[in-house]
Amino acid sequence: MSAVHPFDEAIALTGGPTTYQGRITPAYGNMVGPYGGAIGGALLNAVLSHPERQGDPLSITVNYAAPLADAPFDIAVTLVRSNRSTQHWQLLLSQESVGVAISATAITAKRRESWSQTESVAPNVQTAADVPVMPNQGMPAWVSNYEMRMLEGAVTMQPDNASEHSRSRLWVKDTPGRPLDFCSLLAISDCFFPRIFVRKQQMLPAGTITLTTYFHTDAAGLKQQDTAPLLAEAKGQRFYNGFFDQSARLWGTNGELLATSHQLVYFKA
Amino acid sequence: MSAVHPFDEAIALTGGPTTYQGRITPAYGNMVGPYGGAIGGALLNAVLSHPERQGDPLSITVNYAAPLADAPFDIAVTLVRSNRSTQHWQLLLSQESVGVAISATAITAKRRESWSQTESVAPNVQTAADVPVMPNQGMPAWVSNYEMRMLEGAVTMQPDNASEHSRSRLWVKDTPGRPLDFCSLLAISDCFFPRIFVRKQQMLPAGTITLTTYFHTDAAGLKQQDTAPLLAEAKGQRFYNGFFDQSARLWGTNGELLATSHQLVYFKA
Repeated sequence: MSAVHPFDEAIALTGGPTTYQGRITPAYGNMVGPYGGAIGGALLNAVLSHPERQGDPLSITVNYAAPLADAPFDIAVTLVRSNRSTQHWQLLLSQESVGVAISATAITAKRRESWSQTESVAPNVQTAADVPVMPNQGMPAWVSNYEMRMLEGAVTMQPDNASEHSRSRLWVKDTPGRPLDFCSLLAISDCFFPRIFVRKQQMLPAGTITLTTYFHTDAAGLKQQDTAPLLAEAKGQRFYNGFFDQSARLWGTNGELLATSHQLVYFKA
Repeated sequence: MSAVHPFDEAIALTGGPTTYQGRITPAYGNMVGPYGGAIGGALLNAVLSHPERQGDPLSITVNYAAPLADAPFDIAVTLVRSNRSTQHWQLLLSQESVGVAISATAITAKRRESWSQTESVAPNVQTAADVPVMPNQGMPAWVSNYEMRMLEGAVTMQPDNASEHSRSRLWVKDTPGRPLDFCSLLAISDCFFPRIFVRKQQMLPAGTITLTTYFHTDAAGLKQQDTAPLLAEAKGQRFYNGFFDQSARLWGTNGELLATSHQLVYFKA
């Protein structure tokens, strides 16, 4: 086993601070181009690497404008505005053969202690140890980097199982184990198969167009979670003429809601 | 009554296509600066006004980096990438005395007919006609442009009423009546009072940091809705050290989910 975790290899960057260079490794390949969660991780890594960055990630929006080629990319980072406790970032990822493939914005912030509460409490489910690990044969490469234990809404690829709803629940963590950080939390927020696969129980053309993840934790919360599995839930709200949405929640093992995430997905059905 | 609807006055732009000029009217003023929904409307108006724009809005993310001054602004619009059926846009709103106040990204798309379904069905509630219109005395100016009929989760400003949850439901429409379009649908997706007001039932410092709205409709769906009220629901999922999220759904009178919207909000409590 390499001393560097595969996820760190995938999102590694050089250069900076106005332009960073990177290349998602084949280990995080998807159907077409690399896994969107790893692309998001590389973008967030660029913000976190920037020497003027203050505070922790609060939100990031990643717009997938074109599939990436299996080639190096540039990430141009602009600090649009720096306030006393928040910073606003703009990012563009481009490749020589593709042009601009991704646009993104991110916000970092210094948090202050306040009244706090998880209002969306974690559902009562089987513990991770009691749920078998999902096999990953025949799956795109990126899936092998996660240990997924499906509780509900698995994809069977048997259209007779077509579902009345699109909700999935699973336990998920990096494999090999890796202490949770903002980049991996972002990547995991994109780990759900397209909701149309759950509804139709078949493979169909589908791809994320835009993803927004909100972080509800900080260094202490990440440290507490460490390498334990996250309880993850996703569901779609409307499928309409070629696009559907997905809303997701990621709870830590102690029941704290660590992130919420939303995306809009292209599909053909 | 002026021949031009107040909302159209608020989001009116001149110039273009690389830079548009505008100024939110005092009718859409908020506590500090203009109403975020009207700012979003002006940004989306810039995209829709652009001569190279194709298709309808699919999503928009608006990052509120600084309060706007009561002054004119510039909106710089960049078409980042144009695909066969989608376009990716980047926007920056700036003012002479403020600098960059807003960054945004938007996606427009040509839709194709597909299998479609509203999975998040509208809750069974009283019809709008049976619910009294919320009084707007003492409220910021923008509230007077909407007819709101609260079904649940009203803000009473009486801390003894502090709520166990942050869910609000209401019927909402422009007043005077105005046929729904993408800009007004976006503006309405920001019409909810901060969720911390509902939980604590008191006024506290709070302001939207970033808003993302997904559109699930098209010209035909908007025409069907016309000037009828929307059923709107919002709730928070986690309040943590100075920030909380809000997820919202906006259904048309026929039960179709026209938009879903998410935001992250700064608060002190």
